[in-house]
Amino acid sequence: MAPTPFKTVLRVTWADTDAAQVVHYSNYFRFLERAEEDFYRYLGFSFFDIAKRGFWFPRVEAFCQYRKPARYNDLIEVELIIEELREKSVKYGFRMFNKETEVLLVEGYVVIVMADKQTQKAIQIPKEIADKLKPFSK
Amino acid sequence: MAPTPFKTVLRVTWADTDAAQVVHYSNYFRFLERAEEDFYRYLGFSFFDIAKRGFWFPRVEAFCQYRKPARYNDLIEVELIIEELREKSVKYGFRMFNKETEVLLVEGYVVIVMADKQTQKAIQIPKEIADKLKPFSK
Amino acid sequence: MAPTPFKTVLRVTWADTDAAQVVHYSNYFRFLERAEEDFYRYLGFSFFDIAKRGFWFPRVEAFCQYRKPARYNDLIEVELIIEELREKSVKYGFRMFNKETEVLLVEGYVVIVMADKQTQKAIQIPKEIADKLKPFSK
Amino acid sequence: MAPTPFKTVLRVTWADTDAAQVVHYSNYFRFLERAEEDFYRYLGFSFFDIAKRGFWFPRVEAFCQYRKPARYNDLIEVELIIEELREKSVKYGFRMFNKETEVLLVEGYVVIVMADKQTQKAIQIPKEIADKLKPFSK
Repeated sequence: MAPTPFKTVLRVTWADTDAAQVVHYSNYFRFLERAEEDFYRYLGFSFFDIAKRGFWFPRVEAFCQYRKPARYNDLIEVELIIEELREKSVKYGFRMFNKETEVLLVEGYVVIVMADKQTQKAIQIPKEIADKLKPFSK
Repeated sequence: MAPTPFKTVLRVTWADTDAAQVVHYSNYFRFLERAEEDFYRYLGFSFFDIAKRGFWFPRVEAFCQYRKPARYNDLIEVELIIEELREKSVKYGFRMFNKETEVLLVEGYVVIVMADKQTQKAIQIPKEIADKLKPFSK
Repeated sequence: MAPTPFKTVLRVTWADTDAAQVVHYSNYFRFLERAEEDFYRYLGFSFFDIAKRGFWFPRVEAFCQYRKPARYNDLIEVELIIEELREKSVKYGFRMFNKETEVLLVEGYVVIVMADKQTQKAIQIPKEIADKLKPFSK
Repeated sequence: MAPTPFKTVLRVTWADTDAAQVVHYSNYFRFLERAEEDFYRYLGFSFFDIAKRGFWFPRVEAFCQYRKPARYNDLIEVELIIEELREKSVKYGFRMFNKETEVLLVEGYVVIVMADKQTQKAIQIPKEIADKLKPFSK
């Protein structure tokens, strides 16, 4: 059974745009990160708790296909799904839509790794985090 | 014969970093864009000339693999190569190195399309531009 | 009688921070702009309607005093008030607080001018806009 | 005798612009910071050496007047001068020009404080740093 994606909404602000009068292509990765942060808050675990234990989540891969441009003031819905939940990494799939017109704007994925900040090595995702991520995994 | 990549250098500034004390992952796409702009200046054609004719270069795909983090004050060398030169699109491959240590930081590609700003349709890359890009194409 | 300030709330995202693990000082001006955009939406006039008539709102002055740093995940409340409403310009005063601790983070102002995009000259603020701004003016 | 300002040059990149097709107003503060970083490199002291000793340079005040907009591809010259060198703080005055047309774009100042990262208190600027800054002070 396909999992339900996590959804969150954000508004395009003036500083997100560039001289082509559309959102700068790098900013969709920032939008995605905001969705990821909302997702963690929704799951009830704090990035700071993770950081306090000496862990963090560096990105190892990022991919985006640009379908239609978003513009200033657009309301964007971000859909997040866990494409792959591995022992040490998570692959998030994402799609962003214009909330009003339902037009698909971009889609892609990022792969993040759970790492020990001290040793810089990948480590196993703690069980209580993995358990919370599972319902959103394919 | 493999073409010589175009190379340019940039310095990591404080605003490029995030609270993990490394360059924010979205900023490598901005670094790439700066390299692309340097490349166009080097080739002697101006984005503005293109824009005046009603054309532009929207991105349709972006991909990056993160190998090692860059930090504040690092000198980064960006290597740009044309992976594919098509009738209406260009696929740039890129690699970024720490200029002092020669460590590979990130690698990836972007695909850009030549488009008519009015109709929003992809159009053929003008011959004088294609001719300048060819020596950097695989 | 002192006018009630307009208030809006935003969340600090990872990309807003820098290697000092606090919000980058330039980003408070982006937060302010988001508050201004929320304010216009609240007043029910659209930046696009203004733009369609050939007007825009360039900034002519910006000032900020930094009291306490904001950090990743902080909820920030922005207070906006109109310090001066002139024929052709508006001076917005702002204060930002940590929403949870009520600590004052920054305060300052920006001056914006109503301008004709064609001629680049300052013009009179249209009456229907000025009327909506008045209740928030000192 | 008036001190000679420190000068450095930077190029406006696409990501610096917004939908008004000019540099976003917050980005001049980023340009200023880059000039400041160039200045420290020129003086031969490293931000990292300072950081290793547990010090840093938070901003306490920032001010900018916007005269003329800068656009994509513009070459900008930043002039930096020390308006005031105090025991614990430095006030930098800045002006930015279009390098080709010599038109003044923006001018303003920032005040930074030498602080102990642990205690968050302002501390005296170390003598070897103060000595290097003096020739650029009014």
